[in-house]
Amino acid sequence: MRYLITITYDGNNYFGFQRQNNKPTIQSEIENALEILLKEKIEIVGSGRTDAKVSAYGQVAHFDSEKEIDKKKFIYSMNGILPKDIKILSIKKSNVHARYSAKKKTYLYKMYISEFDHPLHANRLTISPKLDIKLMKKFIKLLRGTHDFDGFKSSGGNVKSSVRTIYKTQLKLSKSKLDFYITGNGFLYKMVRNIVGTMLKVGEHKIELKELKKSLFKSYHYKFTAPANYLYLYDVSYPKL
Amino acid sequence: MRYLITITYDGNNYFGFQRQNNKPTIQSEIENALEILLKEKIEIVGSGRTDAKVSAYGQVAHFDSEKEIDKKKFIYSMNGILPKDIKILSIKKSNVHARYSAKKKTYLYKMYISEFDHPLHANRLTISPKLDIKLMKKFIKLLRGTHDFDGFKSSGGNVKSSVRTIYKTQLKLSKSKLDFYITGNGFLYKMVRNIVGTMLKVGEHKIELKELKKSLFKSYHYKFTAPANYLYLYDVSYPKL
Repeated sequence: MRYLITITYDGNNYFGFQRQNNKPTIQSEIENALEILLKEKIEIVGSGRTDAKVSAYGQVAHFDSEKEIDKKKFIYSMNGILPKDIKILSIKKSNVHARYSAKKKTYLYKMYISEFDHPLHANRLTISPKLDIKLMKKFIKLLRGTHDFDGFKSSGGNVKSSVRTIYKTQLKLSKSKLDFYITGNGFLYKMVRNIVGTMLKVGEHKIELKELKKSLFKSYHYKFTAPANYLYLYDVSYPKL
Repeated sequence: MRYLITITYDGNNYFGFQRQNNKPTIQSEIENALEILLKEKIEIVGSGRTDAKVSAYGQVAHFDSEKEIDKKKFIYSMNGILPKDIKILSIKKSNVHARYSAKKKTYLYKMYISEFDHPLHANRLTISPKLDIKLMKKFIKLLRGTHDFDGFKSSGGNVKSSVRTIYKTQLKLSKSKLDFYITGNGFLYKMVRNIVGTMLKVGEHKIELKELKKSLFKSYHYKFTAPANYLYLYDVSYPKL
């Protein structure tokens, strides 16, 4: 039987989602907890990696087991075993593959507009009040649609095509909190952080939109990579099967 | 000349606002920074104490100095000197006394409705989804007006009268985040935390509203004190002079 689980975590104390030798990762913590609970070695497959320090409101993973799992007991027990910065939100039976069946992913990048790092918004990137938010909104509109995003890729990824489709981009301002949401069918290595870095340069009038339009995101390689610890994997969605 | 400053802080690493011997407090950090910047010993007077671990979005304090202060430079320099969990938001000349002239104070208590401590809402008290929010809303309505709040006072305070006026109480639910706001002309020692503790007992159906009404908050001494680290001094307001 295949089970699909939704996971939330604060990634600050981890070397990313994916298992690595002798380093704390989200995957290894969950696999350890599963082994304790189900008394069998279990490998989970995530919807994708998240980098070191990246957090998640709703990461999704699947695993296979012969055991019949009681949902309520599973969540309660797993959350008792797991460290306090990783928790299971839900579990259901499903035939989807967490990675290959993922249809859409949404990332959230949290910022705070202030002249200084605000003590009560330490989980947000401080950005200057001088940034041109209107221009940043124009920039994120350009991203929508199907493009070759090679220019926003950092080296280290391992994919055949750099063409991705972006369904939705949004900048939400509430008081001084600025939230950037981006939804797509997939993202290249560090693509969201490179987009945020570039968006901030656009807001500083240091990159012109004209240039970006001309390059169609492909031939340009800005590599202004925003820090990982303000990035959150917000949601992963699957086709109804 | 008298200056009024607004301060924000994360109180988790401090023994409260008020200066104490050999213990880190908000007041001593600010006075140290003022001494470095203005090159004179300065004593600040806060709008009131906040307990150990209590934070503030907008604490207010005054101090007197002969120096003519440039606002922008002052904020910039102070925030450079201060630790990252204490920052100055504003400064202005004023004749008010931070404590005696304070007209209204608003506190915020942050909660999160969940079966487990959510990794991304660690700054909120986890409360059970079974709580009766409607009943809690009825309870906080009862608080409005002028009452003797002796029953919500913890021993250790040092005031003549326990009569206070509550102008506004509010419970705001957004997704699973529950924010409790309370505005009054003043608060007794641990009064807000005792109100929150009682509100949660009401929500659990462990205290009846009838009983509370009968006691008029005076003769009852529940002492369900909610934890300090989810409490925030939100705002202090002064008459326009």
